Amino acid sequence: MSGIYYGCDIGGTTVKLARFDEQINIEKKWSIPTRREEDGVHILEDAAKSVAEDLDGLARANGVPLLLGVGIGVPGPVDPSGNISGAVNLGWKKVHVPDTFRRHLQEALRTYPGLEEAVAEEPAIVSGNDANMAALGEYYMGGGMGSRSMVLFTLGTGVGSGVVLDGTVLSGTFGCGGEVGHMKLNPSEEEACGCGGKGCLEQYASATGLVRIYQRYRKDQGQEMAPRSVTAKDIMELAKEGDAAACHSVDVMCDYLGRACCAVSCLVDPEVYVFGGGVSNAGDFLLDKIRKSFRMYAFATSVQAEFRRAVLGNDAGIYGCGLLAQKEHGR
Amino acid sequence: MSGIYYGCDIGGTTVKLARFDEQINIEKKWSIPTRREEDGVHILEDAAKSVAEDLDGLARANGVPLLLGVGIGVPGPVDPSGNISGAVNLGWKKVHVPDTFRRHLQEALRTYPGLEEAVAEEPAIVSGNDANMAALGEYYMGGGMGSRSMVLFTLGTGVGSGVVLDGTVLSGTFGCGGEVGHMKLNPSEEEACGCGGKGCLEQYASATGLVRIYQRYRKDQGQEMAPRSVTAKDIMELAKEGDAAACHSVDVMCDYLGRACCAVSCLVDPEVYVFGGGVSNAGDFLLDKIRKSFRMYAFATSVQAEFRRAVLGNDAGIYGCGLLAQKEHGR
Repeated sequence: MSGIYYGCDIGGTTVKLARFDEQINIEKKWSIPTRREEDGVHILEDAAKSVAEDLDGLARANGVPLLLGVGIGVPGPVDPSGNISGAVNLGWKKVHVPDTFRRHLQEALRTYPGLEEAVAEEPAIVSGNDANMAALGEYYMGGGMGSRSMVLFTLGTGVGSGVVLDGTVLSGTFGCGGEVGHMKLNPSEEEACGCGGKGCLEQYASATGLVRIYQRYRKDQGQEMAPRSVTAKDIMELAKEGDAAACHSVDVMCDYLGRACCAVSCLVDPEVYVFGGGVSNAGDFLLDKIRKSFRMYAFATSVQAEFRRAVLGNDAGIYGCGLLAQKEHGR
Repeated sequence: MSGIYYGCDIGGTTVKLARFDEQINIEKKWSIPTRREEDGVHILEDAAKSVAEDLDGLARANGVPLLLGVGIGVPGPVDPSGNISGAVNLGWKKVHVPDTFRRHLQEALRTYPGLEEAVAEEPAIVSGNDANMAALGEYYMGGGMGSRSMVLFTLGTGVGSGVVLDGTVLSGTFGCGGEVGHMKLNPSEEEACGCGGKGCLEQYASATGLVRIYQRYRKDQGQEMAPRSVTAKDIMELAKEGDAAACHSVDVMCDYLGRACCAVSCLVDPEVYVFGGGVSNAGDFLLDKIRKSFRMYAFATSVQAEFRRAVLGNDAGIYGCGLLAQKEHGR
């Protein structure tokens, strides 16, 4: 009997779930809504119930499967022992993610006659920051494949990032490893980031950041503001067509990304920089500019690093969850 | 018979050498001049000869010792296999440090009758960047003791730094790991750093940087420039006495150090930040300001990190060389 893993990638609106075989191939993928009410107390319970339901379905069809592990991605800093001290988007305060999930899973299994006893082995249950999970996914199965060390930047509404060195995610002492989006790169910035800081990479290199730079530039130039509905994708298209304000904005974004990559290289000096997220759909147009900017700032031999696009899209996180569970089981 | 290790910490003016016992206690410490002529071709040869001479002395006194390893610290990026692609301060271009040292050591041993055969076992020979060696020394035997992860900032003429995670130095893919001094933290800087970049931490947080900020501030305030002989130590003293220009300059320095620590925390999130080098002699006066600045910029839970002073002084590097040799031998 071969074993299976589950991944739960918890986001602010949906929880993505997947069942994997032992080699982390996806057997099934689905999602459930994230219930944020009552400080998000039902989120892990719902995910555990959904896993139990899938296990029951499997058991009925093919006999009780061997559950080896569950990996859980969470939008917030997760410390090395699995504690989270707060996840704003979920309404969570202090939670020990693996223990809480394990308890809910046991309760859920009990509702299916015979299932709890049948899932005999104690599965490995482990959690990590969602951006770090995405980095793990891209490292083993996506843009980082073949490299020994990689940093992933996910350029979406915010800037997510994660660093993987020799197969291990840098999650940090206090769970803040790989939070490159909140590096302060501009002491002159006067507007505040969502985190409360000023001059964070995220203020320049996210979809929101790009729109902000574009609107600010138009205003500074005495131009009419663009409609509030203007998106990062629109600006990227305008830049490709040569629009001056859009070109300027994309250049500023890429300048900051080059600076951020320089900071990363001065610390961990990875072999590969990988870019994912909605904004990265601009493709080589964007990647070429980031690479050029990095080379301008890079210290010494680190200039040789490679720049690549992410390949797993929205599945990077869920793959990372499966991979983390597999690693934990293999310990 | 117990074994011994040697450390060679190569600097621009002197090569520091030390003999260690198996537990990396120093048995003897000495130094020789760094001969930079002819592109520094004699530097490793001189160091190897000096080690051979010491081995011969030991052999005559106590019988041939068991040479377990030699660790070599170099002022430049050393890649994971021991290659250096250039060290400006030594005149070096491409050198494979361990292989070159091994060859010179064998030649040198041959000049003492019977010694080459007597040093039977092939010793572990390994090299690393000098700032990273200092970090390794402080991690195991100095300011980082008891922590799992640490970053060391050495605030001297420049800013050296090194990161140690779970006992391993982050040397990076291209040997540029832990070069925090060349992180670009200010896009508005107009003066250039020694590396050619603009806005590097080193331009604000080194002894040279502090003098530069001080002189620039006086000039901007329409004050007379201070004499060219003014030192970082003078400015630190003036700041302690409440001199406005000096206080401003130290605050700017600590602001950048806080930003740099924030960047470090957003990537590797270490448990402890350790400060050494001449400038750090200002003690708690400086440390308190850096800590305060860090806490202003720190992301989420990383604010809990500890700030400490280095304790090994100029010996940090040589201890690190001994420790790296011990690690390599233990593989």
